[in-house]
Amino acid sequence: MNTKNITSWLNIDANSDFSIHNIPFGIYSGKQVKHRVCSAIGDYIIDLFELESADVFDINRSVFEQEFLNDFIALGKPITNKVRLKLIELLSDTTSILKTNTALFNRVFKKQSEVNMLLPVKIGDYTDFYSSIDHATNIGTMIRDPKNALMPNWKHLPVGYHGRASSICVSGHSFHRPKGQQKPADAELPVFGATKLLDIELETAFIIGKATQMGDSITTANANEHIFGMVLFNDWSARDIQTWEYIPLGPFLAKNFASTVSPWIVTLEALEPFRTEGYVQDPKVLPYLQYSGQKNIDIKLDVFLKPQNGSENKICSSNYKYMYWTMEQQLAHHTVNGCNVNIGDMMASGTISGPSPSEYGSMMELTWRGTKPITLNDGTERKFVNDNDTIIIRGYCQKNNVRVGFGECVGTLLPATI
Amino acid sequence: MNTKNITSWLNIDANSDFSIHNIPFGIYSGKQVKHRVCSAIGDYIIDLFELESADVFDINRSVFEQEFLNDFIALGKPITNKVRLKLIELLSDTTSILKTNTALFNRVFKKQSEVNMLLPVKIGDYTDFYSSIDHATNIGTMIRDPKNALMPNWKHLPVGYHGRASSICVSGHSFHRPKGQQKPADAELPVFGATKLLDIELETAFIIGKATQMGDSITTANANEHIFGMVLFNDWSARDIQTWEYIPLGPFLAKNFASTVSPWIVTLEALEPFRTEGYVQDPKVLPYLQYSGQKNIDIKLDVFLKPQNGSENKICSSNYKYMYWTMEQQLAHHTVNGCNVNIGDMMASGTISGPSPSEYGSMMELTWRGTKPITLNDGTERKFVNDNDTIIIRGYCQKNNVRVGFGECVGTLLPATI
Repeated sequence: MNTKNITSWLNIDANSDFSIHNIPFGIYSGKQVKHRVCSAIGDYIIDLFELESADVFDINRSVFEQEFLNDFIALGKPITNKVRLKLIELLSDTTSILKTNTALFNRVFKKQSEVNMLLPVKIGDYTDFYSSIDHATNIGTMIRDPKNALMPNWKHLPVGYHGRASSICVSGHSFHRPKGQQKPADAELPVFGATKLLDIELETAFIIGKATQMGDSITTANANEHIFGMVLFNDWSARDIQTWEYIPLGPFLAKNFASTVSPWIVTLEALEPFRTEGYVQDPKVLPYLQYSGQKNIDIKLDVFLKPQNGSENKICSSNYKYMYWTMEQQLAHHTVNGCNVNIGDMMASGTISGPSPSEYGSMMELTWRGTKPITLNDGTERKFVNDNDTIIIRGYCQKNNVRVGFGECVGTLLPATI
Repeated sequence: MNTKNITSWLNIDANSDFSIHNIPFGIYSGKQVKHRVCSAIGDYIIDLFELESADVFDINRSVFEQEFLNDFIALGKPITNKVRLKLIELLSDTTSILKTNTALFNRVFKKQSEVNMLLPVKIGDYTDFYSSIDHATNIGTMIRDPKNALMPNWKHLPVGYHGRASSICVSGHSFHRPKGQQKPADAELPVFGATKLLDIELETAFIIGKATQMGDSITTANANEHIFGMVLFNDWSARDIQTWEYIPLGPFLAKNFASTVSPWIVTLEALEPFRTEGYVQDPKVLPYLQYSGQKNIDIKLDVFLKPQNGSENKICSSNYKYMYWTMEQQLAHHTVNGCNVNIGDMMASGTISGPSPSEYGSMMELTWRGTKPITLNDGTERKFVNDNDTIIIRGYCQKNNVRVGFGECVGTLLPATI
């Protein structure tokens, strides 16, 4: 099916993230619905469990009644891609059962505003990379040496580390400002208290769609078979806790108190039309990291800060195309030692900064460690995130008249508990 | 029930790890049994699903037919402790149904040598600490500065980091020597190949038995409510990969190719009689890390190296009592920022070295980076682990005539794949 110039019989706003070219997957709950697999179009969710009562996909509909997408994803891309294409067909064909059967339509379509979106997958292991060269350069410049901002290994391998899966929450949650040890520069001993430097990290993450066995390696050439799709990701970070704890084994409590993901998994197939060139990798990488073709993706990424009772302030506009290391390279590296991956594993990009200051993906970079505060439209300033601030990440691809977006990734910082 | 001087009507070898004072929990598979919860005594496993056909515990026996212990653990300590004490009673009371009903006995008891032990829990998140002061001092002395071997934060918080859960395997497995990037000291560029410095790390791990919600913190005083029990743990490490990759975000591919755990979870209750004093913590730790009472545990830990077709060589005798940071402190630290924990999460100790060279818990320390090779009883030398070597960790507590042990944690290194 050529879906390029296809349109839906539904009236979809041209600026909707959920065009007929998208058809992402998620899990919703609603009135009398605990959890079901759904897709999205325009302002609607599409209840796939209800839809399969009409036997349109010819698969066991119990897979659409699960708490997470893992079982659906485990059907494999030949099936899940067929489901997505069938949805596109049903939504474009004016003679389709979805269009002609009003009773079915009413059971299947629900307003997005009237349902709750849940965490889309049961996350097994969570990995965070550090793959934006502009971000790594900024951080290295600030905390180490501007002349040697990048560590010697940085251009040879996609630096990554394991993170905490249990505290990854779906968009719409809130959490309390975390406490922990910090060591003020002028103090002899560490102190305990709420973090003073609560930061965001603008990231995306991809979800593993096909498992491997221990000992197997994924190549850059077949990585796409193992990537189901992508989400937006906010890797909240407590910078003062991080500075004190991270040597020599990496970030721990500075990150594991909360992360936020967007609820819709946009499939890799929906993102393919937006592939683009990335940075040239120089020096040349080792053979297992080499790849051919365009493997970056042009995903526009915006970050907004909304104070309590205030309005949104756009604080950053970046793009996923700025990644130095691609998902395919990250996955090839992650498994080159035989490390096995499972369906539902989540692998985040690391902060995605672009080359210009308005494209920096963290408050630490945007305010240059607090030395250049951001003035909001209510006149207040921010060096880092304040209590009761809400951070909203939005992301979308747009090319000609085709738009494929992620929706929102929203989290709110509450004051520390007493 | 006072179990102190209790004995079993079964004839149990005095050197058995699985005395009536132990009663650990695990998962086995065997003839016509895919997976069941079991305990152990002497050379036997005790099939709890079969046993509950006699309704001795008054709980739904389906919990004993699961693939992992998580559902059993989720019943809570009031229940799981009651099950353990009931087993002790059944195994000591000469009038118990297990002793008098031969048909039941024959269905419940199976020779350990005739079953396979499986991974005991579905591991959610896996954390590794770095809590042995002798180990951290040795490593710091070798790779940094003998005068400043410990990092400034080391005595103020239990340094830890997140690891990979997917590649944690149960005792008895084998894996191929992992490949990855290394940068030889004299080379300008990194090279790719099989690790040359494959090491072991003698560790233990504890398993979370009671979950928390995000935002909750566990205290040193109530940590024991959240710890179900302990296992032996071998945190295989590729030192050359680690050296090149770990700055600034910690170990990644150097560790995530494989870890080995022993199959029996020895409950915290079985270990309580072996509590002992640990190192004095100086400087004094922050209030949230302070605790009262004896929180170290006297667990004798031995490591053996067995070449293919060779015999065992004891290469290390250490003890869990050498931990500078206790489990209670590790858990209080891990959650002080509100990080939530789930049943089945595994938290490893970090390499457990003692003060003397024969007590060092890794090859890197035992051979001092390969400068002092170990001579085996077959005359060959080892700087690190060779292909086809098997590493066996054993651990047990012994006090007066009471012995509580872990059994074995066994893993074999196969040659790298071509």
